[in-house]
Amino acid sequence: MRRFFLVEDSPFFEIINFNLAAGATFPVHIHDLDGQRSILVIEGEGFFLGADGAEMTAGTGDMLISEIREPHGVRAVSDMRIVVTIAPPI
Amino acid sequence: MRRFFLVEDSPFFEIINFNLAAGATFPVHIHDLDGQRSILVIEGEGFFLGADGAEMTAGTGDMLISEIREPHGVRAVSDMRIVVTIAPPI
Repeated sequence: MRRFFLVEDSPFFEIINFNLAAGATFPVHIHDLDGQRSILVIEGEGFFLGADGAEMTAGTGDMLISEIREPHGVRAVSDMRIVVTIAPPI
Repeated sequence: MRRFFLVEDSPFFEIINFNLAAGATFPVHIHDLDGQRSILVIEGEGFFLGADGAEMTAGTGDMLISEIREPHGVRAVSDMRIVVTIAPPI
């Protein structure tokens, strides 16, 4: 189960809340666009995922910031709530 | 005491973490610029402040999104950690 809520979509940024169940993976993917993205964990524990199987621990309060075009994903160990902000919106 | 950490400043957005002590007020202010801002409470309880003395409760996980030029502020009841994202950066 993955739940997705579009919080905001304006000409300036797009903000999305994803809620991932324990064990869920948001697979590594790419958007070939200019811009940046932040991923903030507001609840739960898991991993930020990158290219070539890279994993970084992702706990409450942790934020990953990267170019939109960098490969990225999230794997939830516990139930996780994340807030993703993308500028400019895609 | 107010603690301020610039988390990111790119051509696309600016992300700032403010940590307010219980009782602290981040006074209502204005930036006369085009753009939008999100304020996400990642810890603590207080109020979002607006024009004319307006107050809205602001607890962990609450997010306020507004135009940059709308009057805004925060008042902390407990110690608060907030993440502010501004696009485009100011």
